[in-house]
Amino acid sequence: MSHRVLTGITTTGTPHLGNYAGAIRPAIQASRQPGVESFFFLADYHALIKCDDPARIERSRLEIAATWLAAGLDTSRVVFYRQSDIPEIPELNWLLTCVTSKGLMNRAHAYKASTDANEAAGEEQDAGVTMGLYCYPILMAADILMFKAHKVPVGRDQIQHIEMARDVAQRFNHLFGAGKELFILPEAAVEEGVATLPGLDGRKMSKSYDNTIPLFEGGAKALKSAVARIVTDSRAPGEAKDPDSSHLVTLFDAFAQPAEREQFRTDLRAGLAWGEAKQRFLEVLERDLAPMRARYDELIAKPDAIEEILQEGAKKARATAAPLLAELREAIGLRRFRKPEAKAAEKKADTSAALPVFKQYREADGKFYFKLSAADGRLLLQSEGFEQGREAGQWIGRLKADGAAALPDVPASLAEGVSADDVAAALTALAQG
Amino acid sequence: MSHRVLTGITTTGTPHLGNYAGAIRPAIQASRQPGVESFFFLADYHALIKCDDPARIERSRLEIAATWLAAGLDTSRVVFYRQSDIPEIPELNWLLTCVTSKGLMNRAHAYKASTDANEAAGEEQDAGVTMGLYCYPILMAADILMFKAHKVPVGRDQIQHIEMARDVAQRFNHLFGAGKELFILPEAAVEEGVATLPGLDGRKMSKSYDNTIPLFEGGAKALKSAVARIVTDSRAPGEAKDPDSSHLVTLFDAFAQPAEREQFRTDLRAGLAWGEAKQRFLEVLERDLAPMRARYDELIAKPDAIEEILQEGAKKARATAAPLLAELREAIGLRRFRKPEAKAAEKKADTSAALPVFKQYREADGKFYFKLSAADGRLLLQSEGFEQGREAGQWIGRLKADGAAALPDVPASLAEGVSADDVAAALTALAQG
Repeated sequence: MSHRVLTGITTTGTPHLGNYAGAIRPAIQASRQPGVESFFFLADYHALIKCDDPARIERSRLEIAATWLAAGLDTSRVVFYRQSDIPEIPELNWLLTCVTSKGLMNRAHAYKASTDANEAAGEEQDAGVTMGLYCYPILMAADILMFKAHKVPVGRDQIQHIEMARDVAQRFNHLFGAGKELFILPEAAVEEGVATLPGLDGRKMSKSYDNTIPLFEGGAKALKSAVARIVTDSRAPGEAKDPDSSHLVTLFDAFAQPAEREQFRTDLRAGLAWGEAKQRFLEVLERDLAPMRARYDELIAKPDAIEEILQEGAKKARATAAPLLAELREAIGLRRFRKPEAKAAEKKADTSAALPVFKQYREADGKFYFKLSAADGRLLLQSEGFEQGREAGQWIGRLKADGAAALPDVPASLAEGVSADDVAAALTALAQG
Repeated sequence: MSHRVLTGITTTGTPHLGNYAGAIRPAIQASRQPGVESFFFLADYHALIKCDDPARIERSRLEIAATWLAAGLDTSRVVFYRQSDIPEIPELNWLLTCVTSKGLMNRAHAYKASTDANEAAGEEQDAGVTMGLYCYPILMAADILMFKAHKVPVGRDQIQHIEMARDVAQRFNHLFGAGKELFILPEAAVEEGVATLPGLDGRKMSKSYDNTIPLFEGGAKALKSAVARIVTDSRAPGEAKDPDSSHLVTLFDAFAQPAEREQFRTDLRAGLAWGEAKQRFLEVLERDLAPMRARYDELIAKPDAIEEILQEGAKKARATAAPLLAELREAIGLRRFRKPEAKAAEKKADTSAALPVFKQYREADGKFYFKLSAADGRLLLQSEGFEQGREAGQWIGRLKADGAAALPDVPASLAEGVSADDVAAALTALAQG
């Protein structure tokens, strides 16, 4: 299996330039690396904790989805979905809730921050604390464990959550795994090198400081007006300027090529006017942002097209989530009732190991294929060729999850003399094996 | 809407005679009352809190399902399902978690009992407490609110949970209902009159006292042997006995007709031997239990048949749950992205109220029907006749939930000149209206 990276996207607020340079752009770049399988999701179940304004939740989700797509997220390479389209996640959330100790949640930073604030204010410890705030590390563990993510890029403040997810996964593996690793233990990938962009006033760009430069909101006009408001010192045109003490230079650097950066410094030292310097920054900015903004405007005008993309993503995500959830349910005892003979047959199959088998392979045409063979080696199902190996894997996942019901969707044909029922029987045998 | 009663069934342990007389029999009798719509569910998500033995969870669920069916639960009249087959429940659980205050959960009796015990033992307050134990009143609220139950039969110790469900429902209605009652506020129906059966030793029959009489477990032989072990005083055959001081009489009463009860008392006063008295009790017991035991044995040998019954039940339950969850998601802002025109069209439809419409009615043949007409009155879909009005309602629910995808399952035919696409469009218009 390739290296799987899962990134959760907060769906409150409207992205600004700091979010783009600090989170969106590096995440998209990382998703283009070979050998990386990326899952990106809009964390809208989490958004409910902080926000009870339905219109804002709806609007934010749409804007943020459009932003990531416009910024170049390639949904043919990555799995991009809305958390709330994956019913397996809240179900897993409950399963994990049952094995999580309350003591672990008591130690969560976000919860402790609330109780500390309450105590300082002389309030009851849990005043104003919702169960959503208290329980969300478990939901986050479900987000991560559901997709067997190896790495989760997080800020320093989120490391604890990944540790909690590991704790919960370990406990579940121990209780129900019977020696098998039902969950992969995720690792936090702390984003050390990521630039925090300064805002208009030089402090970290943040909505709470009211010092942001908009990304797409308000169009080119709003961008230009924000750039004009970047605070500089009062040196006059012609006067030499110190590039190292100007956060305009930091901003410029985040979007310019090395040679441009050098030239910018040289020109500032030589007396470039702040107004002109801002104009140059706007130019490098617009070079990146203008085409994205055009895509963004196009996308935001077609919410149904974004919906379709997300539905596609949800299908791909569920093709991974559903088989794992089925495995977990089996492990904890939430099993379908079966005939004793069926169970005996399973056990027999277990020891004889004569089971149907999926094979994935690459042909001389460079494409990826899969096939399903019966226990006796007879070919049952042969796929078409795929550009990406992952696609083959996803279709297999879908077949395992949905059984023969998935056949009409799967780009594969039955071998000669093989019926859909034969495939159904093989998939059932495989599921019970 | 008829009066809806929801009963949760614990799926741990094996039912004994006390469970039958105190819970199973009265609940099944109540479900036969006219005007009552009963939902019964196997609370297997809850079982995970207390039990981490998968084999026991699996076995208990099966035995308990078979017990209720053998005892006469009529699944053509009631909705009988496994909680874990309804993915809408854990999703609703999360939505409710976001609006539940932590202070409310701190007051839950079961949690407080654990912390009190810990404190008494000098342990940390939350030692050994899982998040499952702490959060389960929210899951219980989801169980109840999901099906808009009016009444929930509970023991005294459970009243608090119903009050919590009301609290959470009220808060949700207030935050997101926009004046509409998204949830019905459930009422606790406290089972005052229900007999608690005495056990072998005269104390309440309970597994923890090890004084139970088995219901089906071990068959007629085990039943006979248990009855023989009922404690009596040592009066000899021929000696007069006091019926009012014998718990054998209480047990007898629970299964005998009024005339038999009278006779039993008279005969005991006249010196009936305890051995014969027990034999008579065994006879009235077997009159009820023998045919049930035969059904039980038959059912337990066919787990796949029970599975089928529960899958049918899950379908019916989801036909109620899915439309409500869709409404809730809409209310809180977890909406599908739609074209602005689509939204405008909705608003327009809202004011003009020209929407397709479902009608339910009864024909001269005594059967219940439904039909779907277009906004202009044209007939689109005509159902077959159903024995029960509820069936018609459930199919409508299914169509509303799943749209045209449900058509192949629904016992209804397209009107002449109408295509499945016409119905799909009407259902979409209805959903967005």
